[in-house]
Amino acid sequence: MSEVAITLEGWYALHDFRTIDWTAWRNASEAERSRALDELHTFLNQWAEVDADKKGSIAVYSILGQKADFVFMHLRETLEELNDVEIAFNKTLFAEFTVPTYSYVSVVELSNYVNQPGADPLQNPDIVARLKPSLPKANHICFYPMNKRRDGNDNWYMLSMDERRTMMRSHGMIGRQYAGKVKQIISGSVGFDNWEWGVTLFADDALQFKKLVYEMRFDEVSARYGDFGDFYVGNLLTADKFSAMLKL
Amino acid sequence: MSEVAITLEGWYALHDFRTIDWTAWRNASEAERSRALDELHTFLNQWAEVDADKKGSIAVYSILGQKADFVFMHLRETLEELNDVEIAFNKTLFAEFTVPTYSYVSVVELSNYVNQPGADPLQNPDIVARLKPSLPKANHICFYPMNKRRDGNDNWYMLSMDERRTMMRSHGMIGRQYAGKVKQIISGSVGFDNWEWGVTLFADDALQFKKLVYEMRFDEVSARYGDFGDFYVGNLLTADKFSAMLKL
Amino acid sequence: MSEVAITLEGWYALHDFRTIDWTAWRNASEAERSRALDELHTFLNQWAEVDADKKGSIAVYSILGQKADFVFMHLRETLEELNDVEIAFNKTLFAEFTVPTYSYVSVVELSNYVNQPGADPLQNPDIVARLKPSLPKANHICFYPMNKRRDGNDNWYMLSMDERRTMMRSHGMIGRQYAGKVKQIISGSVGFDNWEWGVTLFADDALQFKKLVYEMRFDEVSARYGDFGDFYVGNLLTADKFSAMLKL
Amino acid sequence: MSEVAITLEGWYALHDFRTIDWTAWRNASEAERSRALDELHTFLNQWAEVDADKKGSIAVYSILGQKADFVFMHLRETLEELNDVEIAFNKTLFAEFTVPTYSYVSVVELSNYVNQPGADPLQNPDIVARLKPSLPKANHICFYPMNKRRDGNDNWYMLSMDERRTMMRSHGMIGRQYAGKVKQIISGSVGFDNWEWGVTLFADDALQFKKLVYEMRFDEVSARYGDFGDFYVGNLLTADKFSAMLKL
Amino acid sequence: MSEVAITLEGWYALHDFRTIDWTAWRNASEAERSRALDELHTFLNQWAEVDADKKGSIAVYSILGQKADFVFMHLRETLEELNDVEIAFNKTLFAEFTVPTYSYVSVVELSNYVNQPGADPLQNPDIVARLKPSLPKANHICFYPMNKRRDGNDNWYMLSMDERRTMMRSHGMIGRQYAGKVKQIISGSVGFDNWEWGVTLFADDALQFKKLVYEMRFDEVSARYGDFGDFYVGNLLTADKFSAMLKL
Repeated sequence: MSEVAITLEGWYALHDFRTIDWTAWRNASEAERSRALDELHTFLNQWAEVDADKKGSIAVYSILGQKADFVFMHLRETLEELNDVEIAFNKTLFAEFTVPTYSYVSVVELSNYVNQPGADPLQNPDIVARLKPSLPKANHICFYPMNKRRDGNDNWYMLSMDERRTMMRSHGMIGRQYAGKVKQIISGSVGFDNWEWGVTLFADDALQFKKLVYEMRFDEVSARYGDFGDFYVGNLLTADKFSAMLKL
Repeated sequence: MSEVAITLEGWYALHDFRTIDWTAWRNASEAERSRALDELHTFLNQWAEVDADKKGSIAVYSILGQKADFVFMHLRETLEELNDVEIAFNKTLFAEFTVPTYSYVSVVELSNYVNQPGADPLQNPDIVARLKPSLPKANHICFYPMNKRRDGNDNWYMLSMDERRTMMRSHGMIGRQYAGKVKQIISGSVGFDNWEWGVTLFADDALQFKKLVYEMRFDEVSARYGDFGDFYVGNLLTADKFSAMLKL
Repeated sequence: MSEVAITLEGWYALHDFRTIDWTAWRNASEAERSRALDELHTFLNQWAEVDADKKGSIAVYSILGQKADFVFMHLRETLEELNDVEIAFNKTLFAEFTVPTYSYVSVVELSNYVNQPGADPLQNPDIVARLKPSLPKANHICFYPMNKRRDGNDNWYMLSMDERRTMMRSHGMIGRQYAGKVKQIISGSVGFDNWEWGVTLFADDALQFKKLVYEMRFDEVSARYGDFGDFYVGNLLTADKFSAMLKL
Repeated sequence: MSEVAITLEGWYALHDFRTIDWTAWRNASEAERSRALDELHTFLNQWAEVDADKKGSIAVYSILGQKADFVFMHLRETLEELNDVEIAFNKTLFAEFTVPTYSYVSVVELSNYVNQPGADPLQNPDIVARLKPSLPKANHICFYPMNKRRDGNDNWYMLSMDERRTMMRSHGMIGRQYAGKVKQIISGSVGFDNWEWGVTLFADDALQFKKLVYEMRFDEVSARYGDFGDFYVGNLLTADKFSAMLKL
Repeated sequence: MSEVAITLEGWYALHDFRTIDWTAWRNASEAERSRALDELHTFLNQWAEVDADKKGSIAVYSILGQKADFVFMHLRETLEELNDVEIAFNKTLFAEFTVPTYSYVSVVELSNYVNQPGADPLQNPDIVARLKPSLPKANHICFYPMNKRRDGNDNWYMLSMDERRTMMRSHGMIGRQYAGKVKQIISGSVGFDNWEWGVTLFADDALQFKKLVYEMRFDEVSARYGDFGDFYVGNLLTADKFSAMLKL
């Protein structure tokens, strides 16, 4: 067995993609819509407080195209808290006007391919901040799940630690060129969901998602060893914008 | 890492495929159908104005077979504008009579495999026109998404820039033989949607789609490196034809 | 690029597979069912006239198993006519009692792998008849879509014209052994639908479908280069049998 | 082309898997449920008569898990008779309380890999009995469809007749070790449904399914050349047990 | 044929994943909800009794994300008993408020790769306890189905018994490092369901699922020979927590 990279884990993540049932929304009474909107804003406020209290974090974005109308990305300390969040939301009248379309369960993760030997990473405040991050309010979000490929000669898990470390360093260097333009949060989902990782990107200029992911695709880590799931892209949905989106 | 081709991006694109819920349409009252048709035509007019004002573009086509009854292809300057377009449409009564069946998010793109070195492409009015194109009113549309393959020895992203450039030139030469017969718009979707590119073709003679795509399939770029998604083909849907299609 | 086989195209084809919504049908009033049946028979008559007038052709078959209850296979001169046929059918009350389950868009095609050089195939009445065929009234139909494989060493599109021609000749010889037992119509769908070809077989003895397709599977063209989609098999549905099928 | 194994065909088979719509069943009136049960038992009786008259055969089993609640496996002389059976069932009130979940169309088949040369197999009463079998009333059923693989170096259809015959003999010897424990019916579906064969196993001890299929998986025919679809396992459903299953 | 590992089988297993239909639940009357909850708790009590009587076992967990809201994992002596359990549940009013989303049929299994020769494993009380286990009340559950790969050079079933035994021993040693942290139950499903095995893990710290499965992925057995289905992760759902989850 080749040496296993040690990973550090932080907050658990739930990406909850949903579509609005526009026909039901239009056919609801003014009073029902008003009550549903109140519930939505109560939750948005609660989640913002959790975020402010550093007990978790929340990102709310609209999603382009028919895959979903919006996504809630929740970060919390435990799977129990994440489950409570979903159940509480599902009990609202507002949830009746939404249709679940996709979700993803993972945990924010840092791999130690690039750590310095000897240092205790959890004493590093930067690392702790990256494991329990406050999600940014960038203009745009991009989410996709991915695997490292195990296919004939292109089998990531049969490579030596050295080979993997060298490739991951080169990969990380591309990411660093986008510092200030794209913030990326990697979450591990082995044992939790269908792919091995979830990648969530934030940027003010959506074109930077395309440029970053495209450039990385020529890097051997992605070119030979990356398998990718569905991609979602969206726009920041402040509480006001959410209300505007739902206004008939 | 092999050298990455620089790409130029223009307008964002949303392909929005929908089926008509014929049972609901038939069972609606004359007044409801009339109001829904008014909404449709109001949008068609607005989108035509955006097109005329060069602030975006619109193509409306019926689709053959059960995959969809029609497609709206929207081009706009930003993802926010595209999202506004979908949301506004979803709020109409007309939208209640449609069922979303497929969508695609991308951005009109030119790759610089064939550019002359030294020239600033954005000073070239032809290139600008291709990045922010006015969609043609050809008789027929063809849409399909595609990837460049990364499979064992057939891995596009592990080839050198020279190898890729040579193959893309040969590929482009086939396309040029169809100049005047088929207009093609390539849009990049890495980071935006599930495939790497969307290809939208326009032609007055639908057979030219088949001849072009079939001929290209023997070209090494497609034969060894092309993976293709679902294909959609359709007929031009002017505002009058749309009304006729919906007339019971 | 290897030499491309020239193909000849005839009528466009739409295979329209549907299931009957038996619950809705049973719960409809006698009057509704009677009106719906009238609509069905009006269409069957119209389509038979188009067939008699050599302006297209029609085949109507029941389908075994849960994939569909019946298929309409329409041949017409243009995609516009095919679209008109689907739209007109969708507007009927009868269509309300059906659920679309699969469709296929293609164009009847002959490849010239086996043509004699020098001859103009369109001067050959037999070839014209095969491009614009009158669909037979055989007892059984079999439909499946297929691709030529592009996978590692088994890449049809990287073979030379000579290699492909030799294999296609051998393939055609198997087909010819079934002359009089199985009539096959090949339609090309590159650029029109998700596979490269649709194959429609007609036979009075359904076992001949199995024997033909199985024998061909040992031929290198299929064994190494054939990828197949879903198979549909069914029985001839005359207007009387259609009525009997729907009689409660 | 490698030599094709001649196959012998008997009765056509339709496997019809369905789930009960428990909500509709519970909400039906006592009278409706009673009428629906009468219809079911009328059919079970008719099918038992066909079986007794050797004009076909029937097996009725419950299915474990959410894939289906029960399966009807029908054997009949022609595809027309099979189609009549499905249509007649679909017209009942009982069918309104079921949801089709999967079906399979095939024909009972014997391959002649193991036949003695010179002998006319249709003069062999044992072979005739295997082609038109009376389905057993074993405690358990197992059904799965399968293909022989055509993938790179593992391409069954490119092997010589001798290679295939040798492997099939070894395969058959495993099956024979389960004589008296597992009865297997092979039906061919090339040209009829999505896989090349359907395999239906019957046993009084369900563990024997696992042991047989697992042991065969180490045999080269399965290990290198077998591709398998979904597996269904279930328990014998006599008329009384069917009533008990439906009793609220 | 390579030597087949003998397996020992114990109780049959049914994993029954379901989502709550929150809209129906909210719109039900207080009386209906109360009756449905009574049914649920009656079943939970019955199943707990079966567990206490060592006639089977039961685990009840909520599931994170949209794939399901909860899972019942039932162990029973026979497929008939498992089927009775599902049918009885389906007849309840409570079941009307749930939607089946996934299920898995298997049998608890021990492979003898690691057994000592000569010993009769069924005389070993530890082995018997592992074949008919009392499911733990750990904080978390993880379930996924898997296959051993048969793909080109990575074909588990073409390896010799010695090669497989050596790899399985190394694999088992990783598992043993998690003793006390993760309890794993392997169930075989060859002939019963779509994958060859189901893996159910229990742990008080959900992160241990990720660490165990990730570490194993670098082991040759998984790296080269493991193919994995969907992953489900969840939290222990006591009777009280189930009531709380459903309380509006």
